[in-house]
Amino acid sequence: MIDYVIKASKGYPDKIGELVSMLEHARAVTLWEIGGMTQQQLDHLKTRHSNSIGALLLHIAAIEKVHQVISFEKRDFTEEEMAYWGSAVDLGDEGRRDIKDRPLEFYLEELAEVRKETLKQLKTKDEAWLFEENTWPNGVSYNNYYLWFHVLEDEISHRGQIRMLKREMKHR
Amino acid sequence: MIDYVIKASKGYPDKIGELVSMLEHARAVTLWEIGGMTQQQLDHLKTRHSNSIGALLLHIAAIEKVHQVISFEKRDFTEEEMAYWGSAVDLGDEGRRDIKDRPLEFYLEELAEVRKETLKQLKTKDEAWLFEENTWPNGVSYNNYYLWFHVLEDEISHRGQIRMLKREMKHR
Repeated sequence: MIDYVIKASKGYPDKIGELVSMLEHARAVTLWEIGGMTQQQLDHLKTRHSNSIGALLLHIAAIEKVHQVISFEKRDFTEEEMAYWGSAVDLGDEGRRDIKDRPLEFYLEELAEVRKETLKQLKTKDEAWLFEENTWPNGVSYNNYYLWFHVLEDEISHRGQIRMLKREMKHR
Repeated sequence: MIDYVIKASKGYPDKIGELVSMLEHARAVTLWEIGGMTQQQLDHLKTRHSNSIGALLLHIAAIEKVHQVISFEKRDFTEEEMAYWGSAVDLGDEGRRDIKDRPLEFYLEELAEVRKETLKQLKTKDEAWLFEENTWPNGVSYNNYYLWFHVLEDEISHRGQIRMLKREMKHR
């Protein structure tokens, strides 16, 4: 059952634990939303400009992965990582070409594996780390709290799209 | 310019200020997303089961409003409030019937007015308030932190849908 309480997950400093609570709550709702989906539903493309639900799920995992690399290792994806995650990050034509013909379990495992690493790394951080600021190449500042807020934001935004795509499939 | 830093907004206890920072960041992105939209774009219905972008915007304001009432006043909407906000909360047929023929300014003002009250009320709360637990009629627990996380979640989820609706209008 999904609970409706945000509080510090055990084993983390308070503010990191609360962020984890939000990340895990958002994930629980996402998993509930896609429970039992068939490969056909995951691959369905509404129009030639659409993203499939499967592609959106792998995108959610990819965005979390790239934010691990930026926030925990202060680097971008390597070429090797980009070869694996690139089309899930970019979606569009590449996503439609590369992300299909996979059962739900594939997406669930990718999401779970990336999340496991996130939680492992966040356990090693203290609250001050959340507020550490860095600068994008364009000169704009960001902090680690923002990066992980954005992971949350990206998942929830695409989950809204998944919900709409599901409703549209039902009414076809 | 939207910044990419989550930190306690001035005048609030830390954790409330950080939540405010997230709420305001999410709102800034929503406003950027809908900037310059015409009434026709706001009213456009893709199918007879769709919500218009205007309806989604008023829904975002309505969900924030009802969470004010629940978290700050521990009550539900009155009949009078329900008459005003009901179709924006429920969307569907009612939303399609009631929410249209309004310019962007209408939605911007509703969003701003509700938000103003949220910030005013949150300024009076302390961190312990975030963790105060209550129980839904079905016996499930929730705390105030969850309620405001959900306001954030609802806005971001519908913003994802707005983005998809915009893209589809472009490709029509």
